[in-house]
Amino acid sequence: MRPVTPSPGRRETARVHEVRRLRDMIRTTIQRDGYPGGLLPHESELMAGHGMSRATVREALAMLRADGLIERTQGVGTHVVTATVTTGLAEAHGAVRPTADGLLDRRMRPRVLDRTRIPVPGTVAERLGVPPGTPCLRLEYIGLLDEEPLLVATNYALYPEAERLGDSPFTTDWYALMATAGADFGQSEFVIGSELADPLTAGMLGLRPGAPLLAMEQVIYDPDGRPFDVAFIYTRSDRMRFVSRAVVAARPPGA
Amino acid sequence: MRPVTPSPGRRETARVHEVRRLRDMIRTTIQRDGYPGGLLPHESELMAGHGMSRATVREALAMLRADGLIERTQGVGTHVVTATVTTGLAEAHGAVRPTADGLLDRRMRPRVLDRTRIPVPGTVAERLGVPPGTPCLRLEYIGLLDEEPLLVATNYALYPEAERLGDSPFTTDWYALMATAGADFGQSEFVIGSELADPLTAGMLGLRPGAPLLAMEQVIYDPDGRPFDVAFIYTRSDRMRFVSRAVVAARPPGA
Repeated sequence: MRPVTPSPGRRETARVHEVRRLRDMIRTTIQRDGYPGGLLPHESELMAGHGMSRATVREALAMLRADGLIERTQGVGTHVVTATVTTGLAEAHGAVRPTADGLLDRRMRPRVLDRTRIPVPGTVAERLGVPPGTPCLRLEYIGLLDEEPLLVATNYALYPEAERLGDSPFTTDWYALMATAGADFGQSEFVIGSELADPLTAGMLGLRPGAPLLAMEQVIYDPDGRPFDVAFIYTRSDRMRFVSRAVVAARPPGA
Repeated sequence: MRPVTPSPGRRETARVHEVRRLRDMIRTTIQRDGYPGGLLPHESELMAGHGMSRATVREALAMLRADGLIERTQGVGTHVVTATVTTGLAEAHGAVRPTADGLLDRRMRPRVLDRTRIPVPGTVAERLGVPPGTPCLRLEYIGLLDEEPLLVATNYALYPEAERLGDSPFTTDWYALMATAGADFGQSEFVIGSELADPLTAGMLGLRPGAPLLAMEQVIYDPDGRPFDVAFIYTRSDRMRFVSRAVVAARPPGA
């Protein structure tokens, strides 16, 4: 097991933890657009509001600047330089109608990279429960919001669903395309993780290699429980977040 | 807008895309424990199964090796060196009873870093809708699975809920603690993104700085809709994934 804390003394360690906690708090406030006009409070306000020293506040801000989230302008102050769109995970599943502030209310535009009929690759065939080589439609696109890339998705869709997907106009989002194509859905499943952008993906998304991506593998089932689509989706996490809500169940003590 | 593809010719570009797609497919198979005995198929099988050249297969495997997911042993083959736990997002919300294969069925053990009563920091106070300086319990811990760190979580919990949280035994997971403390829940909300591990967080989680983390901000409400807890949770995405399921709603064409 590697050490929990770096080597310096206890007081310095405590301070480094404070920097991390403050950075976390400010970062999520930036991401939910919580600073009016995108302008961060003055250093002295951040110090007072969090009970932290000037050095701690400055270090937290320096980390956020290094991550490209904020910039400091002499005489003006520190302002947010990213715009994060938060989309309901239920919307991303296609389980609820999209809301106007999310990504999926006809706001997105796809740039299609590939839309070809291919033999389904072995690994995906297994996931779909079909023999390798079964024909599928590979539909790969970059999702743009305001002409800026937000995500790249590679879908492998089986026939007959893929038949109509191959020709229907693809002008906004995946679910709109599916609706246009007349496909019937059952369940949608996301496996959610995070990965670093490789140079090619970084180039497609306008990021530097090594930037963090949200990685989602999606499987879509038909109403009878047959999986007909597997998608690999990578999103720019600096520009988009997902929100998930659920009601916590009572759990008996000791359970 | 930065270029979508790197500079080399079209054939080379197409091949680099194939490497990326194959890497994605193998990576998710590794993460869902899809290779029997953790042993990857031979190069020739991967070539045949995916209709790809030896060079493409080798490059995809090299990327996965560089990411620390697989290793090659002379004479034995290529095997998986990570173990990923997949946990239902509904379980992580505390919305359903934990299953035995997830993280939350008494499998996790916390290493408490901090459990102190502090004035709630300004940024969190705003999220909780209370005046800055209102007392809260800061409960920070590393979540361990099989003695290996999986996540670090910093909770800011308001009173009266925090009263019992401060003294109750904390031996497995957050929801078990809450149940023991007798707290009543309403809704749980996660905002999900990804971030790079800073050196301190990396040290706590046994990762190298710059490794990808899943970042989750959680807000927990009481049954009356009053938020009483904000948590910042960072998980090792090489060791844990979340799965979310929903039924896709029919969407009329053109909607």
